[in-house]
Amino acid sequence: MSANILLLPELREMIKNHDDKEMQIFCSALHPASTADFLNGLEPHEIWRILQANPITLRAEIFSYFDSDLQVRIIEECPRDEVAKLLEETPSDDRVDLLDDVKPEVVDELSNLLPTEDRKDVALLSSYDEGTCGAEMSSDFVRLREDMTVGEAISEISAQTHLMETVYYLYVLDKEGRLAGVVSAKDLLRRINQQTTPISSFMKGAGTLVTVDANESREEAVKQVEKYDFIAIPVIDEKNGKMLGVITHDDVLDAAVEELVEDAHLSAGVDPLNDETYLGSNLWLLARKRFTWLAILLFGAITTAMILKLFNNVSDRVAWLVAFLPMIVSTGGNSGGQSATLVITALATGEITLSDWKRIMSRELWMGLILGLAMAGCGLINALLIYGSSVPTLQLLLVPLAVLCVVFFSNLTGALLPLFFQKMRLDPALMSNPFVAGVSDTLGTFIYMLLATILIAPLYP
Amino acid sequence: MSANILLLPELREMIKNHDDKEMQIFCSALHPASTADFLNGLEPHEIWRILQANPITLRAEIFSYFDSDLQVRIIEECPRDEVAKLLEETPSDDRVDLLDDVKPEVVDELSNLLPTEDRKDVALLSSYDEGTCGAEMSSDFVRLREDMTVGEAISEISAQTHLMETVYYLYVLDKEGRLAGVVSAKDLLRRINQQTTPISSFMKGAGTLVTVDANESREEAVKQVEKYDFIAIPVIDEKNGKMLGVITHDDVLDAAVEELVEDAHLSAGVDPLNDETYLGSNLWLLARKRFTWLAILLFGAITTAMILKLFNNVSDRVAWLVAFLPMIVSTGGNSGGQSATLVITALATGEITLSDWKRIMSRELWMGLILGLAMAGCGLINALLIYGSSVPTLQLLLVPLAVLCVVFFSNLTGALLPLFFQKMRLDPALMSNPFVAGVSDTLGTFIYMLLATILIAPLYP
Repeated sequence: MSANILLLPELREMIKNHDDKEMQIFCSALHPASTADFLNGLEPHEIWRILQANPITLRAEIFSYFDSDLQVRIIEECPRDEVAKLLEETPSDDRVDLLDDVKPEVVDELSNLLPTEDRKDVALLSSYDEGTCGAEMSSDFVRLREDMTVGEAISEISAQTHLMETVYYLYVLDKEGRLAGVVSAKDLLRRINQQTTPISSFMKGAGTLVTVDANESREEAVKQVEKYDFIAIPVIDEKNGKMLGVITHDDVLDAAVEELVEDAHLSAGVDPLNDETYLGSNLWLLARKRFTWLAILLFGAITTAMILKLFNNVSDRVAWLVAFLPMIVSTGGNSGGQSATLVITALATGEITLSDWKRIMSRELWMGLILGLAMAGCGLINALLIYGSSVPTLQLLLVPLAVLCVVFFSNLTGALLPLFFQKMRLDPALMSNPFVAGVSDTLGTFIYMLLATILIAPLYP
Repeated sequence: MSANILLLPELREMIKNHDDKEMQIFCSALHPASTADFLNGLEPHEIWRILQANPITLRAEIFSYFDSDLQVRIIEECPRDEVAKLLEETPSDDRVDLLDDVKPEVVDELSNLLPTEDRKDVALLSSYDEGTCGAEMSSDFVRLREDMTVGEAISEISAQTHLMETVYYLYVLDKEGRLAGVVSAKDLLRRINQQTTPISSFMKGAGTLVTVDANESREEAVKQVEKYDFIAIPVIDEKNGKMLGVITHDDVLDAAVEELVEDAHLSAGVDPLNDETYLGSNLWLLARKRFTWLAILLFGAITTAMILKLFNNVSDRVAWLVAFLPMIVSTGGNSGGQSATLVITALATGEITLSDWKRIMSRELWMGLILGLAMAGCGLINALLIYGSSVPTLQLLLVPLAVLCVVFFSNLTGALLPLFFQKMRLDPALMSNPFVAGVSDTLGTFIYMLLATILIAPLYP
């Protein structure tokens, strides 16, 4: 988060003068997110002092916009009982994420100060693995009964506190806590003058409901919300069919962006930063995340060195061969990188699945042929430009021939590798770009040297 | 969209029997998105027949879930006057996008059938460039006046038709149409029993409002909604301050995903597919999009060929040199690709901006040194494994030295290139991966051959 240090002197002045009135005016003048920006440069106990001058709901709202580092420091350093009150006001999904990063002994102390219901809730949400719908959901949603009228539903909304993540979808549960239907606030507002109408007469029920299981990956929730344009999607316990919570539009947006950024990092061979930011991450930690893949790829590249050593006597005799080696392998790497990226993004957005592999393969066979022929033409021009005056054109045809083969195979490898990773239950984006480039290097070097040995070497006795 | 062909025979049977009752039951039994899936395999006139059996609002909702290709065919092939009614019911932002793809003569005919207000609306929205907030917004939002009470606001919501994109934020406009405040449906519902309370007493006004300009890039809207967790963000005409429309959460999610996928494609050297999908795109068109960058990169690779020709006599004399060339340049390309991807994603998510360039550079100088030294170690091991028995170790130190230099410079290039593109008002993701790899190839080849000429060649007279 951006820290705005502009008002720090004034804020410290307020604290010195115990000017609660000014603190209230400051905190309510701006959007809570902007207020948080301005407070961000202060020490936790200073921030706490200013927040305490304000009503608990506003306090909680401003608090929600701090970076998680700062939130954790505030939780650990400020008075336990007041922190517990703040946590009661924090949406249940954020609360669990937050407590994950707080020292266990502090979590214990705070848990004892939370009402039983909130304590149970923390236990439930933290029982799901990271990346599942259960870990992403909030259990704060408005619960209605099937036999309610419009009037009752509306007063229920007012009764079920201000904490609800979304009052825009109201969930109708049966006696067992299973989801029986959904009423939108839109539909309710439109019937505001028909207070005695039963909600069951217009609620969306059974067949039209779209839900996700708590143990499913959160990517599933993203795909459903993207498809149906929901503000929130209900999360169900698949064992007993009970509704556990909702994942709201803002969490879906964050999850969608995080997943795609993670894919981008993975496909460049950087282990996901998780909750870290690029500039905020520890230099050594990031170096280690990058080094691991680089080292694996470098030791993979030992194959090209071995191939070149093997064909040593050919490259010695035909002096011009080496000049085109980087061009040939990099063209292969580039076309493989293109098809890998196209397949990875289509998998990530749900456009294709593993079952489309035949269509993908036949498409990429043609694509490899078209691109291979086109690039071979470019390769020939390059070869003529560099060695056209000293090497017979017939010999230089080796270059476009090698380009054609390398582009064809690299393109296919690039498209199929992510599908193979997916099949192996690995992330399809896994270091795809350098991996495909590495395969192209090996394949390209081998094809080029082999063709040279068969076609050209006999001419250089 | 996935077509579900399971029910096609039953649906065709319904059409044959003119069974309107069945068509109604079918269309209202499922979520409209699922209904659209099932209808997707039919011909436009068949789909039209089934839709016509249903009320116009449901028709419009199902229609909104078809692929744009199918929507365009339905618009062009079905009766104009009925299509015009359907378009009246289509959210204004979708309508404009749709009409963009319809034959101009059909658009003219349909425009004449639309009410004046809708016609003006189409003209306004289509006046904004693609990718701006203005092109993305919908002009269907609930307008309130400052002097309204809770009761009046609620009846206004019912009055302003069901078409509104969002009834969850209600926008309070002054006499000139400028945004004076926002009331959430949540706040309204909570005050349902205080009908005479003026909305101005609890609306969020002036300082706390976050808006975007119509001419700004839609990425700005994505960043603001991500930061503030809004359901919708108001779009303002910067010239006169009037509120023009809203961009809603679902459009923001789509835009965020599209932008990141576009970045991924661009950074692999694939021109954005725009509205096309991977499998749906024309093979020749996609081949052309890929070929352009591949060809540019291949002709860029001419530099490596020239460098290798230049150092011809060194590589001739020192036979083992060539074996390590692919390994050295690919390690450079991989580390450059990592830093480029980290910077591109951090730019895309708004974590860093151009003004952070000094911090980024100092960070990457250190990172390059750390990674360079670590990779040099790996490079030495590789060199010893391949040529340790036949070449003196002191000479093989050339390999780690070259790796260190190449990783250092490629890493820095990878981080700074996207910033340079941004500065030049190009997309920072522009073919970054192959571009950085190309720079590494050239730089790596040059550094390696130069060091070899200075340090090793004199030993091989």
